[in-house]
Amino acid sequence: MSDTTQKPSYRMLDPVSLPELLATLAGIGDRLGGAPRDWNVREVGDGNLNLVFIVEGKLGSVCVKQALPYVRVAGPSWPMSLQRAFYENAYYRTVAPFVGALIPAIHHFDPDQHFTVMECLSPHIILRHGLIAGTRYPNLAGDVGEYVARACFCTSDFAQAFESKMDGIALFTGNKPLIRISVDLIFAEPYRIAERNRHTSPQLDQIAADLRRDSALKVAVSRFGLKFLSEPQALLHGDLHSGSLMVTAAETRIIDPEFAFYGPIGFDLGAFFGNLLLSWYSQPGHESKFGERAGYRTWITQQLETFWSAFDSRWMALWTDSLAADAYPAALFSGARDQAALVEARRAYVNALFADMIGFAACKMIRRIMGFAHVLDFESIADAELRARCETGALNLARLMLTAPQRFRCVADVVDAMPGTL
Amino acid sequence: MSDTTQKPSYRMLDPVSLPELLATLAGIGDRLGGAPRDWNVREVGDGNLNLVFIVEGKLGSVCVKQALPYVRVAGPSWPMSLQRAFYENAYYRTVAPFVGALIPAIHHFDPDQHFTVMECLSPHIILRHGLIAGTRYPNLAGDVGEYVARACFCTSDFAQAFESKMDGIALFTGNKPLIRISVDLIFAEPYRIAERNRHTSPQLDQIAADLRRDSALKVAVSRFGLKFLSEPQALLHGDLHSGSLMVTAAETRIIDPEFAFYGPIGFDLGAFFGNLLLSWYSQPGHESKFGERAGYRTWITQQLETFWSAFDSRWMALWTDSLAADAYPAALFSGARDQAALVEARRAYVNALFADMIGFAACKMIRRIMGFAHVLDFESIADAELRARCETGALNLARLMLTAPQRFRCVADVVDAMPGTL
Repeated sequence: MSDTTQKPSYRMLDPVSLPELLATLAGIGDRLGGAPRDWNVREVGDGNLNLVFIVEGKLGSVCVKQALPYVRVAGPSWPMSLQRAFYENAYYRTVAPFVGALIPAIHHFDPDQHFTVMECLSPHIILRHGLIAGTRYPNLAGDVGEYVARACFCTSDFAQAFESKMDGIALFTGNKPLIRISVDLIFAEPYRIAERNRHTSPQLDQIAADLRRDSALKVAVSRFGLKFLSEPQALLHGDLHSGSLMVTAAETRIIDPEFAFYGPIGFDLGAFFGNLLLSWYSQPGHESKFGERAGYRTWITQQLETFWSAFDSRWMALWTDSLAADAYPAALFSGARDQAALVEARRAYVNALFADMIGFAACKMIRRIMGFAHVLDFESIADAELRARCETGALNLARLMLTAPQRFRCVADVVDAMPGTL
Repeated sequence: MSDTTQKPSYRMLDPVSLPELLATLAGIGDRLGGAPRDWNVREVGDGNLNLVFIVEGKLGSVCVKQALPYVRVAGPSWPMSLQRAFYENAYYRTVAPFVGALIPAIHHFDPDQHFTVMECLSPHIILRHGLIAGTRYPNLAGDVGEYVARACFCTSDFAQAFESKMDGIALFTGNKPLIRISVDLIFAEPYRIAERNRHTSPQLDQIAADLRRDSALKVAVSRFGLKFLSEPQALLHGDLHSGSLMVTAAETRIIDPEFAFYGPIGFDLGAFFGNLLLSWYSQPGHESKFGERAGYRTWITQQLETFWSAFDSRWMALWTDSLAADAYPAALFSGARDQAALVEARRAYVNALFADMIGFAACKMIRRIMGFAHVLDFESIADAELRARCETGALNLARLMLTAPQRFRCVADVVDAMPGTL
């Protein structure tokens, strides 16, 4: 694929030359203040795919994120399209009018060198680290529910004339190299022998073998895999796990939308929901004494409900206000009885999103334990026996969510299926 | 929209200059035989959007179809993208490897003058005329079922890597002006006061008013309208009614795919299914004596079943043979129990297509009686009272199909809901 090859002009940013480069960009020097030679540069990328620099000046700071031409965790042997930086920016640009300060401010995008200069989020930390530390974030779940509702509703057929939405769909089909990663790593490889898979071994060897033989599970996962590819309901972030959120006690920021494409809304919902569940199951691995995280686990289960409720009520409110696009067109629903019928239709639509959230959440839980890319929630549990017990709990719930979907009609059904103690 | 404006170089083909133009195209002169001055040219277009010429030479004949820059039935006041000729050709090119002789052979496409030179179908006639005449076509329903299965399966995620399918989705998003016609005329205007609507009046005035107040119906139609825009399962013909089929006693040809785009398979299925139902309800209007068409009606009901069975069995056979793409990937389903689970998954998938077919068929039936573009099946019934009775029957069934979908699990359920006699 031509767009995965490194352009001749591409070169990796480095801390030494970065200040001079930034000084040439309109507005960046003023934002940092002082002379470039006085700016402090640190490389802080801990994700899978990019270089990330924090640049601090006298007056302020910025964050510079550059796409690498290969998957960082795998090295140059796994090349990866640099165009993902373009799609990340296209996503931010598209949702920015709808989501306010829930995404960072973008100061500059360089399409040739594939880097973005954006607001430096400080003192925000990656949510996953906060969850591992057992920190409570009172606004988090509500913010993320609100965010998914706004970003998805406003890019869907409920808010956009289909011509505009189809332009978006066409644009983001160019993000195939990233979509291919999701297709393979989430919906296929964990259920077959694949070189990139790994799991806590030997403790989970039997479960891994069982998964590969679990026909009902594989059919259910494939149903969601097909949905992922054939239901472009809205523009998705595409990777909305707890590593794509930066938080303080009061603030929530959504970052890293490079997997963006038009897909089923339940995929974004399920990413966050599933990662809260992974965190819940990992908590015993982070206790210094037994039961220490019991209260924190209760807090996490409450966030499941808060998240869904925030999404549900914002979605309903947006649909009530706005019927100007091609879905359920306003001109058809002006009567009093129409409004009553719409209430039912909205409930049915949101119930279907809930079912999708459950299924996608489960797919994402399994891939993080059995597939290529794992999560620090479990990886940071040094004791393999303990880690395997935590992971097994998460796998059992995920399997149930996929193979007995009729048992999960609301968040309380999910909580009921989680064990009282591990 | 820039692509709806007439290019400077565009000019309408005319019978006088057409032979000289065709003589300049590779292979066309040889196919016709003799000198251009001896070729006989007739304009035969009776559709809504195009010029169509039959050109006959000493050795053979060709058909020339040119897009007009406006909607033919409405005149130049309703401009229409000439690019639809491009999408028609793109559709033919895409499905040609899968559907054999069920589409005409394409000899030449001129992207600047927006015309196609194709096989002249003779002695084929438009199916709708044959149905009005009461002619039986033994292979028709089986051919069309086979066609939809092959064209849709082979362009879906079951047969194409998603990268290839996404390229197709992106390409056909350019066909928006035609998709806009479907969105407005099928899913919106029949359910509100709209200038382009018409119906048999005054006989259907009350029913038209009732439809506009029928909240449950409008919600159901809107559900299918949203599905139309947000479920690109496969490349669709987009207008597969009985005016888009040319037939002889033995042969079936699918023509006029200018509404092509990636959408829900049930939309193509429903177009044919719904038009068979319209024909069934129109038959009393074509009797010279009461009951004369009773046997023909029975034949039509049989074709409903034949069509669906042909689709169903071909779809199942294709899915069984081919699992090499991203949907339900082969590598996950190699065991014996996997095969049993897949049988169930396939049944569930095809059942969902059946439900979609029922809903889309009903939407299409209603728009042909209450909306802008009507069908000759009813239009050719001179007696307005009789026509209105036929149309009312069709409307009643369509309403039931949309508002009581659970009653329609198989073709026999549809036939059961049709009256024994009008």
